[in-house]
Amino acid sequence: MSFAPHSSDSKCIATIRVLAADVVAKSNSGHPGAPMGMAPAAHILFSRHLVANPKDSKWFNRDRFVLSNGHACVLQYSMLHLLGYKLSMDDLKAFRQLDSLTPGHPEAGHTDGKFLSRIEVTTGPLGQGFANGVGLAIAQAHLGAVYNKPSFELINNYTYVFCGDGCLMEGVASEAASLAGHLQLGNLIVVYDDNHISIDGDTAVAFTEDVAGRFVSYGWQVLHVDDGDSDLAAISNAIAEARLEKNKPTIIRLKTTIGFGSKEQGTHGVHGSPLKADDIVALKTKFGFSPEQKFHVPQETYDAYAEAAKRGAAAQASWDALFASYGQKYPAEHAELSRRISGKLPEGWEKSLPVYKTTDAAQASRKLSEIVLTALSPVIPDLMGGSADLTGSNLTKVKGSTDFQPPSTKLGTYAGTYIRYGTFHHAMGAIANGLSAYGGIVPFVATFLNFVSYAAGAVRLSALSKAQVIWVATHDSIGLGEDGPTHQPIETNAHFRATPNLAFWRPADGNETSAAYAVALKSTQTPSILSLSRQNLPNLEGSTIERASRGGYVVHEEAGEDLTIVSCGSEVGIAVEAAKKLKEQGIKTRVVSLPCWLVFDQQDLEYRLSVLRSGAPILSLEALSTLGWEKYSHEQYGLPSWGASGPYLKVYEKFGITGSNIAVVGKKVVDFYKQKGGEVVSPLVKAFSL
Amino acid sequence: MSFAPHSSDSKCIATIRVLAADVVAKSNSGHPGAPMGMAPAAHILFSRHLVANPKDSKWFNRDRFVLSNGHACVLQYSMLHLLGYKLSMDDLKAFRQLDSLTPGHPEAGHTDGKFLSRIEVTTGPLGQGFANGVGLAIAQAHLGAVYNKPSFELINNYTYVFCGDGCLMEGVASEAASLAGHLQLGNLIVVYDDNHISIDGDTAVAFTEDVAGRFVSYGWQVLHVDDGDSDLAAISNAIAEARLEKNKPTIIRLKTTIGFGSKEQGTHGVHGSPLKADDIVALKTKFGFSPEQKFHVPQETYDAYAEAAKRGAAAQASWDALFASYGQKYPAEHAELSRRISGKLPEGWEKSLPVYKTTDAAQASRKLSEIVLTALSPVIPDLMGGSADLTGSNLTKVKGSTDFQPPSTKLGTYAGTYIRYGTFHHAMGAIANGLSAYGGIVPFVATFLNFVSYAAGAVRLSALSKAQVIWVATHDSIGLGEDGPTHQPIETNAHFRATPNLAFWRPADGNETSAAYAVALKSTQTPSILSLSRQNLPNLEGSTIERASRGGYVVHEEAGEDLTIVSCGSEVGIAVEAAKKLKEQGIKTRVVSLPCWLVFDQQDLEYRLSVLRSGAPILSLEALSTLGWEKYSHEQYGLPSWGASGPYLKVYEKFGITGSNIAVVGKKVVDFYKQKGGEVVSPLVKAFSL
Repeated sequence: MSFAPHSSDSKCIATIRVLAADVVAKSNSGHPGAPMGMAPAAHILFSRHLVANPKDSKWFNRDRFVLSNGHACVLQYSMLHLLGYKLSMDDLKAFRQLDSLTPGHPEAGHTDGKFLSRIEVTTGPLGQGFANGVGLAIAQAHLGAVYNKPSFELINNYTYVFCGDGCLMEGVASEAASLAGHLQLGNLIVVYDDNHISIDGDTAVAFTEDVAGRFVSYGWQVLHVDDGDSDLAAISNAIAEARLEKNKPTIIRLKTTIGFGSKEQGTHGVHGSPLKADDIVALKTKFGFSPEQKFHVPQETYDAYAEAAKRGAAAQASWDALFASYGQKYPAEHAELSRRISGKLPEGWEKSLPVYKTTDAAQASRKLSEIVLTALSPVIPDLMGGSADLTGSNLTKVKGSTDFQPPSTKLGTYAGTYIRYGTFHHAMGAIANGLSAYGGIVPFVATFLNFVSYAAGAVRLSALSKAQVIWVATHDSIGLGEDGPTHQPIETNAHFRATPNLAFWRPADGNETSAAYAVALKSTQTPSILSLSRQNLPNLEGSTIERASRGGYVVHEEAGEDLTIVSCGSEVGIAVEAAKKLKEQGIKTRVVSLPCWLVFDQQDLEYRLSVLRSGAPILSLEALSTLGWEKYSHEQYGLPSWGASGPYLKVYEKFGITGSNIAVVGKKVVDFYKQKGGEVVSPLVKAFSL
Repeated sequence: MSFAPHSSDSKCIATIRVLAADVVAKSNSGHPGAPMGMAPAAHILFSRHLVANPKDSKWFNRDRFVLSNGHACVLQYSMLHLLGYKLSMDDLKAFRQLDSLTPGHPEAGHTDGKFLSRIEVTTGPLGQGFANGVGLAIAQAHLGAVYNKPSFELINNYTYVFCGDGCLMEGVASEAASLAGHLQLGNLIVVYDDNHISIDGDTAVAFTEDVAGRFVSYGWQVLHVDDGDSDLAAISNAIAEARLEKNKPTIIRLKTTIGFGSKEQGTHGVHGSPLKADDIVALKTKFGFSPEQKFHVPQETYDAYAEAAKRGAAAQASWDALFASYGQKYPAEHAELSRRISGKLPEGWEKSLPVYKTTDAAQASRKLSEIVLTALSPVIPDLMGGSADLTGSNLTKVKGSTDFQPPSTKLGTYAGTYIRYGTFHHAMGAIANGLSAYGGIVPFVATFLNFVSYAAGAVRLSALSKAQVIWVATHDSIGLGEDGPTHQPIETNAHFRATPNLAFWRPADGNETSAAYAVALKSTQTPSILSLSRQNLPNLEGSTIERASRGGYVVHEEAGEDLTIVSCGSEVGIAVEAAKKLKEQGIKTRVVSLPCWLVFDQQDLEYRLSVLRSGAPILSLEALSTLGWEKYSHEQYGLPSWGASGPYLKVYEKFGITGSNIAVVGKKVVDFYKQKGGEVVSPLVKAFSL
């Protein structure tokens, strides 16, 4: 654990600090303070401890680094550049410019190669990175437990997280910290930049809790570095000590001076604005840099990091050899792990999807989801799921599955695939993003649909980061009945349907539930929310996995229709009932099921126009807010307000969502359009849809 | 602090337990476990400590009681009934039935008198009640500091919160707890039902942190009651001790047995389902009740609570006298406090609203918001606001205002009106709900619009509870520029526009910003989100406070138009620019500004149809998701995906949101509809709008 100083250390650290000032000054936007303050920690971590290969940034057993205080991303970009990742000085100069590789906050998941692949997770929204780190650490613990063998420590990387006060105040981080402590994640090391400054000034104005004491209460090891500005030995020793603790996550409370070296160091003046020109001159002079030179990296600094990069390349070479010999001894595990690393699901898994006939009993779609999970879990070991303390309601635990737990609890093992998320809703979403980012795992998480909103901050980052996370969101409407309006989603579907790259599925029956899972599992770049009912749903005549997989289709066809009802989820059956009643009155009614708008919108226009065709009015039906249904219909029926507490059939009746009332509504629509006259054109016919 | 047992204590507690079993059995839905376990604590609190008058449930200085674990509401309903609030045994029998006074979770804010006015806040969604409690406690501390005088301790109530493990796991509660510790809220007393059971079973599966240690770290007093099932003296003494601690909030860790008395006590079997019939028989027998009698309350029990009610009535009588004599000595303060209690704003405050001419300089609407707050704060002392550590960006702190801080910090006083919320986003929203629920305060809170989503769980409860909370949500689009897509809202507006009873305002200029505040302040039953720009906006020709107050109006009129562009916020100016360019091409273009959909929808149809009239196509323009704009337009232009990091004008250009490009788009729309032929009917013309 003894620290060996290098002659280049102070130059390297000064380089990072000066570079931060130059980069932010050029963009005239950004945050120099934290990068300058955390430069010593970053230097020590990357030059002495972190094991990663800049030449193969996707090496599976690399240490993961997360900059939870993402506004400090100049630090991360600078380190990637200095270590020799594909990030040029020109890229640094294009900081925060349109379409550059160096956006205002670190963005992951741009797998088209446009963005840096070694931004592990998208950060900036406070607290997310911290919780992502817990997910990355869970993933390592799990895959290590499953695939490591005696003498084959294949998966044993660490996850390092940098964060500041802002992250530690956010509830998402508190939740994740509590769970990480419970899970005894010894592979997780957090460096907390305790600089006493946030945007409003001194943290004394709002954040005076004993952070160290809090983390001890969570079951963490807490280490202290009192001079994070210059005591490199203390920084290095703390990280080394953290690595030795195998049964607890570690947080290192690193006291630093924000904007170290600036005239305004230690104040919030250096937090979020460029340093003034004269300040930069003084800074460079102080650190032995020429004030005239901008974006200057001394060769000594490049050389020092080249050494670190070499160490990473050597580590990967050893690992490659180890993995090859693992393949000799454990060919099946080798094949499976290789497949998982590649991100491909096992051949033929779709064959296990349950298929239903109309004669099969009506079931709740949460139950249908359980049947899918039960069928798929044996064939897709990548599935790793859990619920926010609603296992018996979400029906997410497959019989016989093992809990992911520290072995000492005797409640499970790290090889277990079922995660008990407590009621840590927001952290659950962010942890799932970490699990997905690690690779080899397809995470699913569960709660009531209404409470997915608690994790809205994480859900939007799944979608932005292209993280394949599956939400099993049960009790998805007023159909949950007695729990009442506090638990009944109204605005939720509009919220998630408006989120780019988020597949919001609301299946109507068994085949549609299978279809939702099928598409969600194939969509490796898209998170999905499966909105599932508490109440039983009949199996529909026209539904098949294939048809539902297009996101929308005609579930009940009728030539020369007077009306089309478009619906989804538990209301499709009601629409079919209404159609029957209307037929008795001589009104021909088609029914369209639209379980996933995102996927439907991806179909060719000809198909979409065949589903939502011109010629007769289209009425939408969903037991939530109608907002957005105008896109697919001429008239909308839904909930004008909050739901109500009561037995679910009575609640449906109160709001007129019954076969009989929808028939009445449908007739009014037909009459209105007859009276109005003229051609009824599909709402899909638009200047920009053609 | 010595506890005096009453002969009726055990009967009272048994009554609560038996009643919980009967009520849940009859509704065949609900949660008997926590009410049975917490019956002793509820009995001791309500019979010995809580000061409130069941005959005047709105008495201002009453102690506030919050059941944060709202699923245990049978307990709350039973106590209200037993104490003599307007809640009959028939109401209890109608538990969880449609339109009853006893919905599945406690609902506040039904001021039409339908629901119980002494449900202080709506609970059930975990953690919210805890954070509401912090808001209630802040309100007391603040109003006490402002209005109490020597010998006139007018406002000195306590806030009591019951909660369980589920609440304490949620980040919203962690955030609120940290802030409550910082604020030294000695008037807040939380009773934590430490029953070791949550829905997934033993809390050992996920929640093994040292809760007591955590709260000590937050700066709380932590007390322990090891036998919450029967040690009444310990319960009472702990509450008494908590009341004595004036500089710290207190949490009492109360060990209880969930479902105490049931055969399945101590297991999650009693958490969320009715007890079996034979179990209820055994329970009643054990507690000396007749197994045949249902919903039986012994007279002894009613008598005991009548004593407590009498104590409350006497307390109010003394207070009324005190307040009257306060009026003699401090007539101005008396008048002001009376007004604030009544919920009315001071006469003529609207006159202070800033008014703008088109010649006034373009300004960011966040800046315009600051100008409004600066103008109104002196005339409306009820305004109490703060920001989630973004004061300098949100521009919410009026010059010269004092921080709400414990005097010992020397950073402010409890009389201060500006709250430093740290980055406690979710708690900030929930605390504001508590501030609003207390009365006499109009809370505003602030962050970037994108991060209001962190508080989505609290925002929906503002709307459901009819809590007047104003969100100052700045940096409201890709117009924030460099911070990039992690900070740029896309789905956010659809989310909040789909939320019932939530006024989402996106003003386009100075007069519209004043209008947004004007309506938000007049809407005492509706929360508002003011979506404000980072970038400067020109003052529009057609805008006035009066017109904008209708939620939508014609900002640029043009007879016999070829096109109407409907827009809001920072894009209205761009629409006006496009209209000018189109005019040069001979295309007559009207522009409609629609700052608030909720308010516009409340206008009569004739007005709405005059704004969005038939005759020409309507194109919507907003730099976010287009979802929902189909309601007001034929064609939509917006962001098809995530935003981008870069200087804001370049980001706007990238996505084609410029006067020139919208002119091109507008022309395509006009051409398309000409080619299509036929009458163009307003999207407002519907079977159900007429």
